[in-house]
Amino acid sequence: MTEMRVAVEPVAGGITAPRGFRAAGVACGLKPAGLDLALLACDEPASAAGIFTTNRAVAAPVLVSRAQLAQSGGRARAIVINSKCANACTGEAGLSAAREMVTATAEAVGCDPRLVLVASTGVIGMRLDVPKVARGIAEAAGRLAPGGHEAAAEAIMTTDRAPKERAVRVATPAGTFSIGGMVKGAGMIEPLMATMLGFLTTDATVDPAVLRRALVDAADDTFNAITVDGESSTNDSVFLLAGGASGVAIDGALYPVFVGALRGLCADLAKDIVRGGEGATRLVEVRVAGAQSASDARRAARLIANSLLVKTALHGGDPNWGRLVAVAGRAGVAFDEARARVRIGPAELFADATVFDEREADAAAHLQGPEVEVAVDLGTGGSGAATVWTCDLSAEYVRINADYRT
Amino acid sequence: MTEMRVAVEPVAGGITAPRGFRAAGVACGLKPAGLDLALLACDEPASAAGIFTTNRAVAAPVLVSRAQLAQSGGRARAIVINSKCANACTGEAGLSAAREMVTATAEAVGCDPRLVLVASTGVIGMRLDVPKVARGIAEAAGRLAPGGHEAAAEAIMTTDRAPKERAVRVATPAGTFSIGGMVKGAGMIEPLMATMLGFLTTDATVDPAVLRRALVDAADDTFNAITVDGESSTNDSVFLLAGGASGVAIDGALYPVFVGALRGLCADLAKDIVRGGEGATRLVEVRVAGAQSASDARRAARLIANSLLVKTALHGGDPNWGRLVAVAGRAGVAFDEARARVRIGPAELFADATVFDEREADAAAHLQGPEVEVAVDLGTGGSGAATVWTCDLSAEYVRINADYRT
Repeated sequence: MTEMRVAVEPVAGGITAPRGFRAAGVACGLKPAGLDLALLACDEPASAAGIFTTNRAVAAPVLVSRAQLAQSGGRARAIVINSKCANACTGEAGLSAAREMVTATAEAVGCDPRLVLVASTGVIGMRLDVPKVARGIAEAAGRLAPGGHEAAAEAIMTTDRAPKERAVRVATPAGTFSIGGMVKGAGMIEPLMATMLGFLTTDATVDPAVLRRALVDAADDTFNAITVDGESSTNDSVFLLAGGASGVAIDGALYPVFVGALRGLCADLAKDIVRGGEGATRLVEVRVAGAQSASDARRAARLIANSLLVKTALHGGDPNWGRLVAVAGRAGVAFDEARARVRIGPAELFADATVFDEREADAAAHLQGPEVEVAVDLGTGGSGAATVWTCDLSAEYVRINADYRT
Repeated sequence: MTEMRVAVEPVAGGITAPRGFRAAGVACGLKPAGLDLALLACDEPASAAGIFTTNRAVAAPVLVSRAQLAQSGGRARAIVINSKCANACTGEAGLSAAREMVTATAEAVGCDPRLVLVASTGVIGMRLDVPKVARGIAEAAGRLAPGGHEAAAEAIMTTDRAPKERAVRVATPAGTFSIGGMVKGAGMIEPLMATMLGFLTTDATVDPAVLRRALVDAADDTFNAITVDGESSTNDSVFLLAGGASGVAIDGALYPVFVGALRGLCADLAKDIVRGGEGATRLVEVRVAGAQSASDARRAARLIANSLLVKTALHGGDPNWGRLVAVAGRAGVAFDEARARVRIGPAELFADATVFDEREADAAAHLQGPEVEVAVDLGTGGSGAATVWTCDLSAEYVRINADYRT
């Protein structure tokens, strides 16, 4: 493969930064106040890919969107999204409601109902108020515009503290295309707000099968490498639409460029979710190396990232390296305490069974920052490595999740 | 097997309730103030069994006690325990320190050093101050007495709010014997206090192999069925000594009686640990049924018991049944949402895809009590079931674990 000159730069515009996409966000009355219904439409039928929760309790919109993508062979014109109500654990009535969202969107946008995808986030077990949503869909269709990305990003929020959207422009010898995205993050309350929804757009031309492969590839080290509290919801979904308005076709040579830019955008959006985690005050990068395999490393990194003792110590700014050793030891993967190493920021605190107390002040200073790093070498001599992002655990998290409905 | 008339009644005296045992607790100076060294001795060589942490980072006292039990074929005269320092991640020096505790105890008690077991709990990575401990051992040996159980139970505490000890007397046609126990619980700070230590005694006569089987049997549904925060430490140990002073030999007919009484005592001590969990305000019994196997049920129950969203909702007294469904769905075991059932206390809130909002007030009232129950039927029609005990998660837990060293 020959070298290719590529420039990737951040741009404004979120999901409507790529040409050919329009969006809107409206208040349809599911929330007591604020935007709660988003619509995303592509001017032409787009290639479409989706990845969904692995939870065996699956919300109705996930079931419907999965079926739609299978039936259309990976094509879509529009995505409709509501917040406040997850439409999960709602039985047959919930499936009908999700299908009615599809029908109403197809009518409002003027497209084949087989080309509409749907996502919901909010309270499990709550019935969706379909008339309210249908009125919102009609209103949103009338407001679809290239400038509608901000309202859409706001309408999908639950306990998110701010909208989360990003976009990049990718310049290649074959032409310039863009990728945009918006996500909603780690609010999970009343009783369980869907962990994450993500919506990605591009004006590149991508075959549906290639698009799906790119989304899976990009999500693996990004959306699937973050955790706020170890929960996975009934509604997790990430969609990617490729409309083709840029005229740039993603062929074999451009695929690595496309995936690289997509992965970078997903990584930034994924970290935005963690930064916005309930009660979070720090973004934590957990690096595990020296594992016998990449999956061993991922497993240990996830356990560390979900450990209450690690997360509370990081919240307190306490370089408690012993907690990292203890979690690595219970991860169920090969671990050699005698050759293990633990580093917090710049300071290696434990290596080859020796404790370096004198470096603890450096580690403590590092932990005062908003973005911190902890690293564990499992000591097996293997080359398996993984990185996971998480946030600290504060008393605020407990307050949010204990007291929300009282 | 013929019916046997058996009476099991709670008695005072903790680990020295069984005849032939003496104990002491002293302050040797590891803690700034308070008792920090415990000694337990049997008048005669006792059968001994131990179960230990499954963490691959294993503290020195665990390695030494395991080796002692293997070498002695399950015999012991004494156990020495220190708090404040876990003697974990301390390399060869830590092993030497644990062995010196054994030697000093054998000298002070006047027994074969092969018959001494050792346990530690406290800070990982801290070197044990052996001279202080050795002086403490000499002092404790001089104070060994049948009334020493209270001081011993206090000396093994870390962040425990109160000592935890219990004993039962078991009357059988073959004679009367006792079982006693003390535990230290779920304090895990600075940086990681060993999750739990347990010390059990009986004056029944039990063969070492039978004793080990009884301990494993009894611990499985008790000490191995509790969780405060999903962490397992480098130092977890439970020991059981059988001295034989009652003259009652545990034969085939008495074995079920012995295990039954032992399991009951372990269950009460295990629940004491959960009640005393850091920041805990409620004891929570998590029951899972309708699983395809007992191990599936145990797995789902543990995930529910460790879920931050479940634990925070229980802290807030919020009957968020949707969180139970979502965790059961991500447990990686067979789960049928359409036939699943969720109950909180007396109120079934979700069954056969139907939500019973009108029962929520009953569930909320149940959650105001100090001991609560949540139950999930996974809906597979299988007979697998399991019970796990946990506590709620409060902001106090975060404060304890974030701010301890600051």
